[in-house]
Amino acid sequence: MSYKVGIMGATGAVGREIIEVLHDRNFPVEELRLFASERSAGKTIDTPFGAITIENADMADYSQLNIAFFAISGDWSKENADKATSAGCYVIDNSSAFRYDDEVPLVVPEINADAIGDSKLIANPNCTTAIAAIPLYALHKEYGLKKVIISTYQATSGAGAAGMSELTEETKNYLEGKEVKNKVFTYPIAFNTIPHIDSFQENDYTREEMKVVWETRKIFSEPDIPISCTCVRIPTMRVHGESIVIETERPIDAVDAKKLLGQVEGVELKDDIENNIYPMPLNATKKYDVEVGRIRQNLVFGDHGLEFFVCGDQILKGAALNAVQIAEKL
Amino acid sequence: MSYKVGIMGATGAVGREIIEVLHDRNFPVEELRLFASERSAGKTIDTPFGAITIENADMADYSQLNIAFFAISGDWSKENADKATSAGCYVIDNSSAFRYDDEVPLVVPEINADAIGDSKLIANPNCTTAIAAIPLYALHKEYGLKKVIISTYQATSGAGAAGMSELTEETKNYLEGKEVKNKVFTYPIAFNTIPHIDSFQENDYTREEMKVVWETRKIFSEPDIPISCTCVRIPTMRVHGESIVIETERPIDAVDAKKLLGQVEGVELKDDIENNIYPMPLNATKKYDVEVGRIRQNLVFGDHGLEFFVCGDQILKGAALNAVQIAEKL
Repeated sequence: MSYKVGIMGATGAVGREIIEVLHDRNFPVEELRLFASERSAGKTIDTPFGAITIENADMADYSQLNIAFFAISGDWSKENADKATSAGCYVIDNSSAFRYDDEVPLVVPEINADAIGDSKLIANPNCTTAIAAIPLYALHKEYGLKKVIISTYQATSGAGAAGMSELTEETKNYLEGKEVKNKVFTYPIAFNTIPHIDSFQENDYTREEMKVVWETRKIFSEPDIPISCTCVRIPTMRVHGESIVIETERPIDAVDAKKLLGQVEGVELKDDIENNIYPMPLNATKKYDVEVGRIRQNLVFGDHGLEFFVCGDQILKGAALNAVQIAEKL
Repeated sequence: MSYKVGIMGATGAVGREIIEVLHDRNFPVEELRLFASERSAGKTIDTPFGAITIENADMADYSQLNIAFFAISGDWSKENADKATSAGCYVIDNSSAFRYDDEVPLVVPEINADAIGDSKLIANPNCTTAIAAIPLYALHKEYGLKKVIISTYQATSGAGAAGMSELTEETKNYLEGKEVKNKVFTYPIAFNTIPHIDSFQENDYTREEMKVVWETRKIFSEPDIPISCTCVRIPTMRVHGESIVIETERPIDAVDAKKLLGQVEGVELKDDIENNIYPMPLNATKKYDVEVGRIRQNLVFGDHGLEFFVCGDQILKGAALNAVQIAEKL
């Protein structure tokens, strides 16, 4: 069996990557149709599936599609999801529009594919959540997570293709002594770090930080796990790093944890410090698996604590790959 | 009264900055003499104290100096400190050579100036320690630190002028599509993050991470505070960021903590999220004070927990400024 697939937002960083991942994973595509804003409609782009002309996403006829990937914006998803699912089309939504809706499954396939059930609408988690969730869930099953403390090193691709372009432009201008102007980010990001991603919430955390809390709890079906997060934008292109400290219910040994993580689907162990092997954007870029390393007994929580570093491609496991993996489960 | 001052390693990033800080803070300099390796000896450099010819550091006559700043290397400090202090010269050592020696005071003047006593040799802490120590000590006095968990965002200046040059060169080559070669760092740092600074220890932490643990305990005279740290090099120039989570002995309220931190000597409060004010390398560069912001009640430790972000100029409070502040206390 094969499927008529639509990508809504096909000209964005995530949309473009979904095309590549569908092809790379031999997803059974009967027909691929690409949609974007009215502005882009009519343009033809080359894809591994041949040259395809972009259509206006607002005018899509979902009765002609089996699966639609939504990668435009949260508002756009809210306005269009019902239209699509009513026409019998599965929607895999990359935005945050439905992630916190109890009726909508939020899925990382390695963890909770069974949550999909018979829902026509499935939410794709935030990139920062998806990348950390893979190793964290394996540790949770084995040792029980009691506390999770995360600090992130987030790439400019989190703001899409425009974010990466802004970093490149700013960096060039900085090095040539020209004025550095920012549009996508709140401040210049070249040679800077910005501890602010998405809007501030009432508790003074950012929405990006709270997404990690809300979404991890939902994906794990553990509504009470204490989690905190500081999200920081740094001048890298497309891989998010995360420094993670956990306290566990049961005693944890770093050697055992390393063995366990080495066997987890979706994890590539990069933990050989004698040979300077550890997770880095340099290697994790365009890689499906999440790199995990620097695994060690945490000094604060002792024999109930572990500390490690992860790097995952924000556009792949953080978005396009996870979305296609969901489609594979339908 | 004024002093004959020598700077050993005057051509390095920290040495050069010590000259500026001495001048900027009107340190009572009777005579300034600059020393470096034999290779640099004989060159004349312009300083705010006039043009000064570099002398060979190995041949220094310490009986002609009242205070010597050591900023060459740990090995060099070990070989030369005794010679200097025996000649009656105070030594303020920027290396890690004597930091863990019980006989040698390790000093952040805002915290433990009294530890200097009548010692002729005083150690300057690691940059990452010094920057975090200022806000942490204020919180410790008021609330009692029970746990400290740190993740760092460290600038290339931590490897001196050569580190900053390497970032600039690599970035240019990357943007021009040329090969990126690394020498100073273990891997290319342009558009990358490297979770590895200094050598790995038996417990799988790096020496840089353990320095924060060892030195904070010594400066605070609290040998048992549980502290853990993940140190990460990122592509910024000269300001270290640190994401810090603490659990406190006594209940802590974020509003009170913010008020307290706003009054601490050496801290500039950058915490007005409504106006997007928070610590960033962009603003903290070449600033004496450590920027502190993103102060909020930590979600994991609840009413006994606080989370915040700091940025401090690695070359100033992390090195040159702290060294000169020590000299001011002699």
